[in-house]
Amino acid sequence: AKSFRVVVLPGDGIGPEVVEQAIRVLETVSELSPDFELKLESHPFGGCAIDAVGEPLPESTLKACQEADAILMGSIGGPKWGVDAKVRPEVGLLTLRKTLGLYANIRPANLASDSLLNYSPLRPEIAKGTDLIVIRELIGGAYFGKRKEQNVEPNPEEAWDTMIYSVAEVERITRVAAQIALAANPPLEIHSIDKANVLASSRLWRKVVTETLTREYPQLKFDHHLVDSAAMVIVANPRKLNGVILTENLFGDILSDQSSVIPGSLGLLPSASLAGAPSDPSSPNFRPTSGLYEPIHGSAPDIAGKGIANPIGTILSAAMLLRYSLGLEKPAKAIEESVRKALDSEDAGGLGLRTADLGGKSSTKELGDKIIELL
Amino acid sequence: AKSFRVVVLPGDGIGPEVVEQAIRVLETVSELSPDFELKLESHPFGGCAIDAVGEPLPESTLKACQEADAILMGSIGGPKWGVDAKVRPEVGLLTLRKTLGLYANIRPANLASDSLLNYSPLRPEIAKGTDLIVIRELIGGAYFGKRKEQNVEPNPEEAWDTMIYSVAEVERITRVAAQIALAANPPLEIHSIDKANVLASSRLWRKVVTETLTREYPQLKFDHHLVDSAAMVIVANPRKLNGVILTENLFGDILSDQSSVIPGSLGLLPSASLAGAPSDPSSPNFRPTSGLYEPIHGSAPDIAGKGIANPIGTILSAAMLLRYSLGLEKPAKAIEESVRKALDSEDAGGLGLRTADLGGKSSTKELGDKIIELL
Ligand SMILES: CC(C)[C@H](C(=O)O)[C@@H](O)C(=O)O
Ligand SMILES: CC(C)[C@H](C(=O)O)[C@@H](O)C(=O)O
Repeated sequence: AKSFRVVVLPGDGIGPEVVEQAIRVLETVSELSPDFELKLESHPFGGCAIDAVGEPLPESTLKACQEADAILMGSIGGPKWGVDAKVRPEVGLLTLRKTLGLYANIRPANLASDSLLNYSPLRPEIAKGTDLIVIRELIGGAYFGKRKEQNVEPNPEEAWDTMIYSVAEVERITRVAAQIALAANPPLEIHSIDKANVLASSRLWRKVVTETLTREYPQLKFDHHLVDSAAMVIVANPRKLNGVILTENLFGDILSDQSSVIPGSLGLLPSASLAGAPSDPSSPNFRPTSGLYEPIHGSAPDIAGKGIANPIGTILSAAMLLRYSLGLEKPAKAIEESVRKALDSEDAGGLGLRTADLGGKSSTKELGDKIIELL
Repeated sequence: AKSFRVVVLPGDGIGPEVVEQAIRVLETVSELSPDFELKLESHPFGGCAIDAVGEPLPESTLKACQEADAILMGSIGGPKWGVDAKVRPEVGLLTLRKTLGLYANIRPANLASDSLLNYSPLRPEIAKGTDLIVIRELIGGAYFGKRKEQNVEPNPEEAWDTMIYSVAEVERITRVAAQIALAANPPLEIHSIDKANVLASSRLWRKVVTETLTREYPQLKFDHHLVDSAAMVIVANPRKLNGVILTENLFGDILSDQSSVIPGSLGLLPSASLAGAPSDPSSPNFRPTSGLYEPIHGSAPDIAGKGIANPIGTILSAAMLLRYSLGLEKPAKAIEESVRKALDSEDAGGLGLRTADLGGKSSTKELGDKIIELL
């Protein structure tokens, strides 16, 4: 049996609670299959690491992440380590992304089940059928360009950041979007988002996306949208952008969060941050990609410790981990199926298996139990 | 009688059609009042100016704008002058903003009438009561920072833009937000939006907003939100941000467009771009502010020339023009009242006075007629 090393970073707030259920799910699929074995090990990361050792990303945690086949994270941060704090959890996350070269952030926003339509802030007829995958460049742009803080010479009265992209950076993220688009049958359409009518970095973005797709993936359909217009369409008519939304770091931060409220609860959605294009796990040429997997929700300090957080985003992140970093498509699909069944069980038997974010009374653990039972 | 010079820039696409109705409305309020007189003059601007004289902002148009008491614009651009074109209409707009020092963009997003709730893409119970005013800094940030295009030395493979803000730039836009907040009774809450957990320019933004408001407007309530989180809240629960949304140029571009789909049709919403803080027209110390007023919709080439565009956004922009640049509060209010009545007339008498964007069959001119009749 193949053996994989998975580093777990439970983090802060509800992080440890939701991660616990995802670990149980991973342990179950591994027990059910003779083909592979998972070695799970937890490490401190984020606010809890600041409290324990004074820094969000301790050397030992970074080293474990670098050696792991994949990383599963809960959530980090909280009011205790706010924007004004000296050492902040997010800095650990940004360093981890950069050091591991996790340039491709993948965030699906779709309705896992039509039974959830009533939880969307959009009218059901507008939300229905929304099926977006945001592919966000994660280690370039204004996040990592040169910057100058206020009160620093020269010009202490000014502060600035640089939105910068190179041809190579845009090419590689475009290829990730193309691979994801091609993995679907029929292939997905790619919607590239920029602000090319104003920004030089966006003009480069648009040109390189066009050239890369035309040259290397002539079979794929794609178009370009300005970011302001895309922000309107995502609310007014999200199906119009169904397929892959390909964009740079800062726009992706905004648009992926905006998209993620359509399916009704942030608690449902997973994400992956990869160091390379995900290849098809069912192909003999599958090449694993190191990656960090986490739910998109935050650490939700208001409900931390109460055992009522929705574990589904983390459990679906674990499914993505199996698929993209370990090449294990079968157990990934099995988990996704169980989640869908668990969500639909309310309609079926009136079980009301919903956590508080979806208007229910179930505990984090009860969701975990049900999903495991259905595996 | 006081005489005011108003420059009109009809622009492209549906611009001339909607501007025509706003001019009729302005002429009517001016005829109805012995206190003031409006001198209206049209100038070429945008795509039509490119076609006529090879540039979007001819010298004579700029000069007229500089000498005017206020400017009313339709809309500019279209597929004919796309992102790849040598000379683009938007460049004229950016130059006009910068040259006239129009640093404060004001964009209300509210439901002019509850009878429109059914046109919002949001569930009625979520859209109801939404009352946002986005105040966007308009001549700083990445729009006007130093930039480098691709294929330029050094590093032809890279392109970049600079998001830059100075203390003075943030102070003055904060004061505009404070004035707008104080003009309401009770004063509005201010929600400042940035990305201070990542960007240096946002850290300056947050610090200066906090200091300016605390020092100069201690009576006002304010808070800070990260832009990604704000983009979620605007969809999930927009009332939470009711009041003034204060933000920098690029974030404001995205968030104001996103907000503007909540009220059901872009065709309804006005905007103002001002060179100074708007003072209270009812106060004896009123100081006029030069400004550019325009509907937020684009040139909609698909329906141009058909006479079916919604003129309300432009008519409400004309009302803002009277208020902020001419200090004429009474006719401004009168116009806003007539628009509200015209929109509600469907419920009242089944007139179906709606343009196509709101599911109706009325023409642009019919809307204009009705609003003038109600004045
Ligand atoms: C915590 C923060 C630095 C981070 C980001 O902006 O990338 C977060 O918002 C995210 O999207 O993962
Ligand atoms: C046309 C474009 C340059 C402009 C902008 O980005 O400012 C437009 O989107 C707007 O918001 O007025």
